[in-house]
Amino acid sequence: MEKRQPIPVAEAVHRVMDYAFPAKKELVPLTQAHGRFIAEAVRADHDVPAFDRSPYDGYAIRSIDSKEASSEHPVRFQVVGEIGAGYVYDEVVGHRQAVRIMTGAPIPQGCDAVVMLELTHTFEENQQMCMSIKRNFEAGTNISYKGEDVQQGAVLIEKGQYINPGVMALLATFGYEQVPVFRKTVIGVMATGSELLDPGEPLQPGKIRNSNAYMMMAQIERAGAEVKYFGKFSDDLELCIENVEKALQEVDMLITTGGVSVGDYDYLPAIYEAINAKVLFNKVAMRPGSVTTVAAREGQLLFGLSGNPSACYVGFELFVRPIIRTAYSNSQPHLRREQAILGKDFTKANPFTRFVRAHAYYEKGQLVAVPSGFDKSSAVSSLASANAFIVLPGGSRGYEKGMSVTVLLLEDLQGSEWPWDNIEKSYR
Amino acid sequence: MEKRQPIPVAEAVHRVMDYAFPAKKELVPLTQAHGRFIAEAVRADHDVPAFDRSPYDGYAIRSIDSKEASSEHPVRFQVVGEIGAGYVYDEVVGHRQAVRIMTGAPIPQGCDAVVMLELTHTFEENQQMCMSIKRNFEAGTNISYKGEDVQQGAVLIEKGQYINPGVMALLATFGYEQVPVFRKTVIGVMATGSELLDPGEPLQPGKIRNSNAYMMMAQIERAGAEVKYFGKFSDDLELCIENVEKALQEVDMLITTGGVSVGDYDYLPAIYEAINAKVLFNKVAMRPGSVTTVAAREGQLLFGLSGNPSACYVGFELFVRPIIRTAYSNSQPHLRREQAILGKDFTKANPFTRFVRAHAYYEKGQLVAVPSGFDKSSAVSSLASANAFIVLPGGSRGYEKGMSVTVLLLEDLQGSEWPWDNIEKSYR
Repeated sequence: MEKRQPIPVAEAVHRVMDYAFPAKKELVPLTQAHGRFIAEAVRADHDVPAFDRSPYDGYAIRSIDSKEASSEHPVRFQVVGEIGAGYVYDEVVGHRQAVRIMTGAPIPQGCDAVVMLELTHTFEENQQMCMSIKRNFEAGTNISYKGEDVQQGAVLIEKGQYINPGVMALLATFGYEQVPVFRKTVIGVMATGSELLDPGEPLQPGKIRNSNAYMMMAQIERAGAEVKYFGKFSDDLELCIENVEKALQEVDMLITTGGVSVGDYDYLPAIYEAINAKVLFNKVAMRPGSVTTVAAREGQLLFGLSGNPSACYVGFELFVRPIIRTAYSNSQPHLRREQAILGKDFTKANPFTRFVRAHAYYEKGQLVAVPSGFDKSSAVSSLASANAFIVLPGGSRGYEKGMSVTVLLLEDLQGSEWPWDNIEKSYR
Repeated sequence: MEKRQPIPVAEAVHRVMDYAFPAKKELVPLTQAHGRFIAEAVRADHDVPAFDRSPYDGYAIRSIDSKEASSEHPVRFQVVGEIGAGYVYDEVVGHRQAVRIMTGAPIPQGCDAVVMLELTHTFEENQQMCMSIKRNFEAGTNISYKGEDVQQGAVLIEKGQYINPGVMALLATFGYEQVPVFRKTVIGVMATGSELLDPGEPLQPGKIRNSNAYMMMAQIERAGAEVKYFGKFSDDLELCIENVEKALQEVDMLITTGGVSVGDYDYLPAIYEAINAKVLFNKVAMRPGSVTTVAAREGQLLFGLSGNPSACYVGFELFVRPIIRTAYSNSQPHLRREQAILGKDFTKANPFTRFVRAHAYYEKGQLVAVPSGFDKSSAVSSLASANAFIVLPGGSRGYEKGMSVTVLLLEDLQGSEWPWDNIEKSYR
């Protein structure tokens, strides 16, 4: 029987990250850019606002003309024109003249203040529109100045940033009808195990339904990549090798679940050998997922994740996710690491680093994490409510409620640059 | 000029929520269910595991036979068979007999413990496979019992829950080849303003590019709904009325941006009147977005959001998002409310409740929120990095770094049931 050497998690992640690759770029219409990762830095090609403009409905005036205004002696202006958003008033405004101005319209030449409509009194005199005010306004009152929001040339969005609604607004503002984004990494998924039934098949003695493949499809999508599902492995080794070879032509990376243990029927090692893939590691000092195996062939990664749902889930988030986000030039490709208060005792001893599925929430702004439900690597029930892993270092005895623990957040767009420092006792 | 009465935010949200409606259901293939909201509670139709099974590779034995085993006196077992995952061993195991068993395989009849492969010594004697162990194992060692993860009949996923990767695993486990989800609410978007250019058009004096429509497309998708974009309003009132009438036939709700101020050119009120829509409110005691207007016609909501990007953004998240999530029976349809520490002084006075675009992050597990960039309702730059609103109650003077403030989280799947209690001074 083969003896496997477990390596620290950080070391395993390092070995995988050595095979990180950049995704290709593509242009997508702005309407389809949300949720993608931008492939170029976005620089402001003009000031925002592009011109001095009015933030309110009111009257544009020369502030000097309002100097003497008071409740007792209102100052009267002649209304010489009106200007809506999108139009330009093309004359110069003179002494005690005012222009009726709408929100967003450019400030007419000569004017340096806008008086809100509510503070004016409008009337007609000698068939001439007039307006009066009862106080003075300083120069600059109610003017949104050219460039005050964004200055031309400013880098607003870094390459690799996730496109959220605010980024969409900026892209529209700067004329990105087409948006350069990273092409989605294509990840193949194959399930292995004679015990596996498809979700549509009736249960049979000794068999279980294949849940890992569907779970991983969602994890892949959440990470920002695209799935290609190849179904279940056959029981025939030759056919398996052929299928893996074929799949590798069609995807950027390939994930298999199951078949990684040392049992007689687990022939992933045989496949790796047959296709000349180099095994980066086949045992990690962690629970669940200690048998996680990763191999590479001509720069292409093959992830052999455990057949146990929780172990598979953890393996994906730790090893596959950062490769996807790195392909998109994202500077924080790993799960987001934070400190939290443990909300409940966790008494199990940890010979290895343990990733406990957990629900993280706030208590008066303080992050609290509670293990979610049943903690065996074969459990599926605890995955539905999990939005974090509690990371418990190996060699520890058990943890009590109230202690500070490291957590990795799952439903999070931010990520972290490298979450593995000082979690495990030793790493390269 | 019309005088508008501002109402408190909570009151405005209440008035909108009175028009909440349920979305229809539809079946989608499991492969497309991620990110949707489930339309029925999911109940376990069988135990998980469905049978007692082995979590490891090893030997299934009768624990009683191991009783006398020690280093000095190893106990020898006859290996009578082998069983892989997915198969059933159909004989009863007897005295000092063992069955080679793989991870996931059902425990053979008669056996009550599994010894891990590493703890056994395998050898051949008289053409008979044998195995010996050097210690005793208690009944139940290394057995995953039927139903220990999930018991038949348990409700695992409530109606209205978001389908994440863990939920996908459960759906697969319980045979949901097709998944009942809520049909996506269809939201129409129309932009108004003579100043608006499409993202593909070159800049012109006095004009700006339409950013709100694209920003809102992403907000709509993030909330879980579908967009139908109707482009820009025409300048012709009759044509506008016609377009709005037509759009209302094709969508569940309609959002317009701009045209809600009291300026001469803002004719949304005229449209509402022409189509017999009842205005629920046209002024809210908040900044930005005080001119937010919501109307209803025959139960159908029309949202008139501000033309200012930040005001529009806030209006969507406060008023439209909860209607979408409520349509999906989600029990926490509003933005998630939490307490945070203010990370920076905010000195502006607040006559009304103010929603400050902010970036929220953790400091040793404590949530901290910092206003993001330039805070004018016309600003687009501060939206890209915002993942929260800081909510500052009206009547307050200004806030200092280190104070505890209420925040609403934007990039969050959890939401809250009703975040508006005790934020504003008065509400119905």
